[in-house]
Amino acid sequence: LRTGFPEVIWGPGKTPDQIAQIMEAMRQRNSVVMATRIEPDVFATLETKVQGLRYYNLARICAITPPTIEPQYPGTIGILSAGTADLAVAEEAAVTAELSGFHVQRLWDVGVAGIHRLLNNRHVIESASVLIVVAGMEGALPSVVAGLADCPVVAVPTSIGYGASFGGLAPLLTMLNSCAAGVGVVNIDNGFGAAVLAGQIVRTAYKLRK
Amino acid sequence: LRTGFPEVIWGPGKTPDQIAQIMEAMRQRNSVVMATRIEPDVFATLETKVQGLRYYNLARICAITPPTIEPQYPGTIGILSAGTADLAVAEEAAVTAELSGFHVQRLWDVGVAGIHRLLNNRHVIESASVLIVVAGMEGALPSVVAGLADCPVVAVPTSIGYGASFGGLAPLLTMLNSCAAGVGVVNIDNGFGAAVLAGQIVRTAYKLRK
Amino acid sequence: LRTGFPEVIWGPGKTPDQIAQIMEAMRQRNSVVMATRIEPDVFATLETKVQGLRYYNLARICAITPPTIEPQYPGTIGILSAGTADLAVAEEAAVTAELSGFHVQRLWDVGVAGIHRLLNNRHVIESASVLIVVAGMEGALPSVVAGLADCPVVAVPTSIGYGASFGGLAPLLTMLNSCAAGVGVVNIDNGFGAAVLAGQIVRTAYKLRK
Amino acid sequence: LRTGFPEVIWGPGKTPDQIAQIMEAMRQRNSVVMATRIEPDVFATLETKVQGLRYYNLARICAITPPTIEPQYPGTIGILSAGTADLAVAEEAAVTAELSGFHVQRLWDVGVAGIHRLLNNRHVIESASVLIVVAGMEGALPSVVAGLADCPVVAVPTSIGYGASFGGLAPLLTMLNSCAAGVGVVNIDNGFGAAVLAGQIVRTAYKLRK
Amino acid sequence: LRTGFPEVIWGPGKTPDQIAQIMEAMRQRNSVVMATRIEPDVFATLETKVQGLRYYNLARICAITPPTIEPQYPGTIGILSAGTADLAVAEEAAVTAELSGFHVQRLWDVGVAGIHRLLNNRHVIESASVLIVVAGMEGALPSVVAGLADCPVVAVPTSIGYGASFGGLAPLLTMLNSCAAGVGVVNIDNGFGAAVLAGQIVRTAYKLRK
Amino acid sequence: LRTGFPEVIWGPGKTPDQIAQIMEAMRQRNSVVMATRIEPDVFATLETKVQGLRYYNLARICAITPPTIEPQYPGTIGILSAGTADLAVAEEAAVTAELSGFHVQRLWDVGVAGIHRLLNNRHVIESASVLIVVAGMEGALPSVVAGLADCPVVAVPTSIGYGASFGGLAPLLTMLNSCAAGVGVVNIDNGFGAAVLAGQIVRTAYKLRK
Amino acid sequence: LRTGFPEVIWGPGKTPDQIAQIMEAMRQRNSVVMATRIEPDVFATLETKVQGLRYYNLARICAITPPTIEPQYPGTIGILSAGTADLAVAEEAAVTAELSGFHVQRLWDVGVAGIHRLLNNRHVIESASVLIVVAGMEGALPSVVAGLADCPVVAVPTSIGYGASFGGLAPLLTMLNSCAAGVGVVNIDNGFGAAVLAGQIVRTAYKLRK
Amino acid sequence: LRTGFPEVIWGPGKTPDQIAQIMEAMRQRNSVVMATRIEPDVFATLETKVQGLRYYNLARICAITPPTIEPQYPGTIGILSAGTADLAVAEEAAVTAELSGFHVQRLWDVGVAGIHRLLNNRHVIESASVLIVVAGMEGALPSVVAGLADCPVVAVPTSIGYGASFGGLAPLLTMLNSCAAGVGVVNIDNGFGAAVLAGQIVRTAYKLRK
Ligand SMILES: Nc1ncnc2c1ncn2[C@@H]1O[C@H](COP(=O)(O)O)[C@@H](O)[C@H]1O
Ligand SMILES: Nc1ncnc2c1ncn2[C@@H]1O[C@H](COP(=O)(O)O)[C@@H](O)[C@H]1O
Ligand SMILES: Nc1ncnc2c1ncn2[C@@H]1O[C@H](COP(=O)(O)O)[C@@H](O)[C@H]1O
Ligand SMILES: Nc1ncnc2c1ncn2[C@@H]1O[C@H](COP(=O)(O)O)[C@@H](O)[C@H]1O
Ligand SMILES: [Mg+2]
Ligand SMILES: [Mg+2]
Ligand SMILES: [Mg+2]
Ligand SMILES: [Mg+2]
Ligand SMILES: [Mg+2]
Ligand SMILES: [Mg+2]
Ligand SMILES: [Mg+2]
Ligand SMILES: [Mg+2]
Repeated sequence: LRTGFPEVIWGPGKTPDQIAQIMEAMRQRNSVVMATRIEPDVFATLETKVQGLRYYNLARICAITPPTIEPQYPGTIGILSAGTADLAVAEEAAVTAELSGFHVQRLWDVGVAGIHRLLNNRHVIESASVLIVVAGMEGALPSVVAGLADCPVVAVPTSIGYGASFGGLAPLLTMLNSCAAGVGVVNIDNGFGAAVLAGQIVRTAYKLRK
Repeated sequence: LRTGFPEVIWGPGKTPDQIAQIMEAMRQRNSVVMATRIEPDVFATLETKVQGLRYYNLARICAITPPTIEPQYPGTIGILSAGTADLAVAEEAAVTAELSGFHVQRLWDVGVAGIHRLLNNRHVIESASVLIVVAGMEGALPSVVAGLADCPVVAVPTSIGYGASFGGLAPLLTMLNSCAAGVGVVNIDNGFGAAVLAGQIVRTAYKLRK
Repeated sequence: LRTGFPEVIWGPGKTPDQIAQIMEAMRQRNSVVMATRIEPDVFATLETKVQGLRYYNLARICAITPPTIEPQYPGTIGILSAGTADLAVAEEAAVTAELSGFHVQRLWDVGVAGIHRLLNNRHVIESASVLIVVAGMEGALPSVVAGLADCPVVAVPTSIGYGASFGGLAPLLTMLNSCAAGVGVVNIDNGFGAAVLAGQIVRTAYKLRK
Repeated sequence: LRTGFPEVIWGPGKTPDQIAQIMEAMRQRNSVVMATRIEPDVFATLETKVQGLRYYNLARICAITPPTIEPQYPGTIGILSAGTADLAVAEEAAVTAELSGFHVQRLWDVGVAGIHRLLNNRHVIESASVLIVVAGMEGALPSVVAGLADCPVVAVPTSIGYGASFGGLAPLLTMLNSCAAGVGVVNIDNGFGAAVLAGQIVRTAYKLRK
Repeated sequence: LRTGFPEVIWGPGKTPDQIAQIMEAMRQRNSVVMATRIEPDVFATLETKVQGLRYYNLARICAITPPTIEPQYPGTIGILSAGTADLAVAEEAAVTAELSGFHVQRLWDVGVAGIHRLLNNRHVIESASVLIVVAGMEGALPSVVAGLADCPVVAVPTSIGYGASFGGLAPLLTMLNSCAAGVGVVNIDNGFGAAVLAGQIVRTAYKLRK
Repeated sequence: LRTGFPEVIWGPGKTPDQIAQIMEAMRQRNSVVMATRIEPDVFATLETKVQGLRYYNLARICAITPPTIEPQYPGTIGILSAGTADLAVAEEAAVTAELSGFHVQRLWDVGVAGIHRLLNNRHVIESASVLIVVAGMEGALPSVVAGLADCPVVAVPTSIGYGASFGGLAPLLTMLNSCAAGVGVVNIDNGFGAAVLAGQIVRTAYKLRK
Repeated sequence: LRTGFPEVIWGPGKTPDQIAQIMEAMRQRNSVVMATRIEPDVFATLETKVQGLRYYNLARICAITPPTIEPQYPGTIGILSAGTADLAVAEEAAVTAELSGFHVQRLWDVGVAGIHRLLNNRHVIESASVLIVVAGMEGALPSVVAGLADCPVVAVPTSIGYGASFGGLAPLLTMLNSCAAGVGVVNIDNGFGAAVLAGQIVRTAYKLRK
Repeated sequence: LRTGFPEVIWGPGKTPDQIAQIMEAMRQRNSVVMATRIEPDVFATLETKVQGLRYYNLARICAITPPTIEPQYPGTIGILSAGTADLAVAEEAAVTAELSGFHVQRLWDVGVAGIHRLLNNRHVIESASVLIVVAGMEGALPSVVAGLADCPVVAVPTSIGYGASFGGLAPLLTMLNSCAAGVGVVNIDNGFGAAVLAGQIVRTAYKLRK
């Protein structure tokens, strides 16, 4: 039903053999097949079993893709992340969006404790059709961004942090309580889900415009 | 910054006098001014102080509006609610969306325990540009709807329930853990925020098409 | 006191030697002796120590059984699971029920995000005397099933999920707050307990009919 | 779909007028119509609006019923409660079961701190087809009862208690962690839901026997 | 032991008579005596009993003070609040600090969703010796401020919010997880405690310089 | 200050070398020196370093003791445990009490799901001066025992369980909410602390009698 | 079974009529009958219905007692409280203990923030046979006291506090994690239960000495 | 912006290669570069890659420093810890403060269960300009210290403990609820953050005095 999105396999709890098997089956009917949460050693085994597999190591995604992937929709999904440690989740969102045919613009390390780096890059916020904002620890970035942006914001809390972060509960609550309206929240570390939601938003635009 | 959206006052904790004063000030610069979470007795006092005030009693919203409000954007925001008790939150979303210039289609009482009533109304799901899905208790409706829909879903948990609902925590967690991708969650009972997010999504489409 | 049910050993925290010893002792007085939560490597050691041991690898159960096990009670326990990852818990329920002398019908991968797969298999729901419904992540399946079924539903939340699933807390709360009546909930991942409860329900019928 | 069960209205959050209206509508198609969580003052107003209304004050249920209600199914639903304060929930279960056509046997005040009172009434446990066990505070009663009983046990935690009871969370967790198998748990204070589940269990027997 | 700070009475749970009595006793030994969390109606009674009582209605503080209160320490305590609803807590901090002999500079309504209002008032941040930052809902303001400031920040979460704010838990966690170092957190709504901590910091400076 | 109790070392987080060193230092001034939470492999190293070390493997305690340890106080500390898995904690309590000079009577495996085994051993309850009751999972045993006993009960929740046990939170809450008075609760898995409290109780008797 | 302790009625949720009736029935068989959590207005009604009723207003206890109550056991129960707001719970413990025939010594307002007041009253700690320590907010007092005392300590957390106290959860956790051994914890605000446990401890001594 | 503080790298989740690379880059512009949470084995690799690296093993910090580090500010940061297990966090604070140019005085093992050791070292409390107080388990030390001190107190909860400590939640809540004013709390185990806050406080004094 996620017409237009690639088929996706959730990696954890599956053996390389199982993943390989599912990928082979899926490639019959899909031009893009991807698997998420794939650690480097799992990929090392996988690439001996599945032909033409590509690995996006920051995103921990591996995928079977056509030689080149061009954006199929208008507009841009802007993706912002607060800290370096949030990169894996932000890249999961970015690669998922790109593999799904969307144009992505990345802006990393714009956490709220250094607000000027964010403000100096306002053009990314202003030129996006939809924004994905990834943050762990206190999770304050989506509120600031939603205040600056005039487009929908998809907020992704991450489990990055320690102590009173309680595995991502702290940024999750922060984002749900955002005083800026126009923010939708997805599960902790769910970069994939954020990309699908953002993609749906762009596709809505695409369908409406026709 | 929420260009195009009406100015909004959050009612709780403000006296009728304070609300009246803020409304009068805002009406100078805005064609639509609204206040949310207004109980009937507060409205009774308010309407003696503010001229031309309209009350949407199910939504607990009062507003200063032009004589007629026409949709200013293409597309439809479909709003679904699970139980009768979720109505106040669903109407808060619906009235906010309408006052903001969007076309709304309501579908009440389609909780998952009677899945056929939902399936018999699939046209609402299929014709919407974006869906707002409101549910309390177990909060399962957005997952089912997102599985049927090919558009973004904004999920609103409500505090309707008792016991292990823990004030809306149960449906909130349900929605965050949705196995269907394409769902963004807002705060418990936040019908207003859901409408702004849905409106932003439609406006994105509107801007992109130009 | 669980007359008619096999003796059961809870595997975790016990050495293969301890499990073997308890099994040997129990087999004196019972035709069926089973141990749950047995990983493959534990079984590998166990089968060198206990004669005639059978391993149900999906269910992680090993058992001493008579050569064939025939249903001893009328009716059917229907067992449904939402996702592939819930399989281990669902099979723990299924194998426990079968080893206890009940007839079981399995229906896997009928999560609510793809409601039509569930509806296309309604005959399983309609022909069961009691249903066990296993789901992780948002845990919405029991509510939908209980709305369709006219028999008791035993709901089993699983720890499958991540982030705001909080180790199974999310589906547990979902199931406790089910808006459909006729649902009894057991502990997270407790496939065994669900089977015993479902078995008790069928046995009640059996006793009453006499 | 709850064929054979009466139509039920959840009282809280509805005005007497709304309840009266729904009752009148429902009585067209049902021989028994009931409303739960009805406080005495709400009933006082209701009985001036709805003819032939009966009030079960301990259960806080009001109902339209035929002159006499005879059990329509074989077997007995035994209902046990731990403390006097749990009575309202236990009676909600008992009256719901009786209005649904089941035979009920009550056993009040058999909390585990006075285990002999329970043991002196073992005949209630032994003669029941299914048991509903209601307890607040530490919620230990269902475990003891399930150890004594050879039939399904429906456990109902109540919000009775204070401090570390956290609104019924303590007995809820107790019941979910019961070391005795054969226990299904419903939501805090959900006497009604327990009765429907117990009723479904007896009806299963009834259907199987035919 | 809080040498130099006024004696303080915690109002809630005390009758006006009790408060009056304690105030009269304290004024023997102290030039400033204050009571916090005093609602207007309590003050109305109090002022008939205690002579020379002053009421700070926004702060809900009443106090016996000398005719004029001059700052006794160098430096400035800057106090920022995010939303209008946080005002009561922010004023509790401000009035406590002033009554304790510190110079205070207020900056209200500089929530992160409108970051430019904050940036346009950077001089307040830059000229302060210590900052108290008060915020409810998502509680993100202290992180942004601490990133801009080169002085200690005392963060005060408030119970302002609803739903997933859980009575102030959300902003509390946000502040504890601040990615900007140099932030100390006090209890939810504890404007008084924040002022004492900020005052201690200024006094440390005062003592060291001598 | 714990006059009469042995010196104790908390093992976790210490290297065998560190433990050995502390033990050697302590043996100068104490006839009994003990270390808790010592796994077998840690003991294997320890016994090569500390002379005359004894290992209580079920209790995971190792100790330097005089050749024989005789009870030095009147009365008996009865120790009961619910399940086999609770044994380690119960033995930690038992060995600590014995090494501290108290007479101990053990009663294992008397969980509430098999109430008759408990009742058949009532003499243990009746002859004790103080009881330590150890239970995981639902933690119901102390309530039942306190109802039968006419002496103080020290309740020890254990982390034995899974799912909704939440690491021992469930039995902890159960015990705190006990409807039987005369129960004092210690931390999860704190067999040692329970023994010290029980010992203090017996010593109080001893001191008073003199 | 609590031989020697008075019969007790838990007041909340009972009408004055119900309380009066139970008291009259209980006075037939008991020389002391008491009811807890009785607000002044409830007592005002009660004393018109029950003859010879005494009210302990700080403790919110009313009781039927013999003309004089003399201690019937040796030793002293020392009762300490941290703040004035904890008085009601501390007095509930004190009055319960006195009505049960124990000698009580009170020491109020010795919170840890003013450690010298506690140290100046060490004789109370040193002369007690058992100590009850009542504290809200951070609940640190029992740890300090247990470090000074050589007798059992019963710790009572109170719901006094706000914000991150979460209704007494904070002091409850503090007390359970006490680094001083010899502390048993009862439910939040459970002064009554603390007195029964302390009384059981003294009675144990009494029985052992005989 | 933390002018005057060394550049810091958060070690967890970074490979030795990444840490080495960042350190080399940072040393160009900073006289002190430090990395926290560095386990001994990581340091072993690091020192082969980065020249002139120093390891503070108790603090798990490694740093590039000038040959000698002299205090650059007046006053003293007193650092107290409750138990030996809290040492790592306390040393993280101490080494961070020293590397940042502050004078530090350490006082270890002064937990509240042995209050006299603390009182015998009051000179440390009295001579400090600011205090950092580190405690796990029940976390009571900051309250006692703040009552004795007339300077700001930075409280650091640690994750040391077990059971109902819930990973440091217990001491965190204790510290937030401190009845002594003048306490600011940082995240669980955040020795680094405490040092930066304490440093900011001393620097404020330094700036104000000029
Ligand atoms: N990284 C991810 N985060 C969240 N959901 C995912 C992720 N990757 C895959 N999924 C979901 O998991 C489903 C596949 O699960 P499975 O059948 O177990 O491989 C997909 O349809 C996605 O909806
Ligand atoms: N998979 C399971 N889930 C829940 N409870 C179980 C499971 N397997 C065994 N048990 C219970 O654990 C008891 C045996 O525990 P043990 O004596 O430790 O082997 C049985 O009587 C069952 O009630
Ligand atoms: N203040 C109190 N705190 C805790 N438990 C109490 C209190 N007062 C009475 N109880 C308990 O409640 C029981 C009486 O409850 P009830 O039968 O509802 O009046 C007594 O036996 C006591 O165990
Ligand atoms: N031990 C620590 N505890 C808390 N925060 C730290 C610690 N060490 C470093 N940090 C913070 O982490 C930031 C560096 O993170 P990174 O860029 O991932 O190395 C620093 O600027 C500090 O604010
Ligand atoms: Mg915006
Ligand atoms: Mg969809
Ligand atoms: Mg049904
Ligand atoms: Mg049973
Ligand atoms: Mg700063
Ligand atoms: Mg007893
Ligand atoms: Mg002691
Ligand atoms: Mg102080």
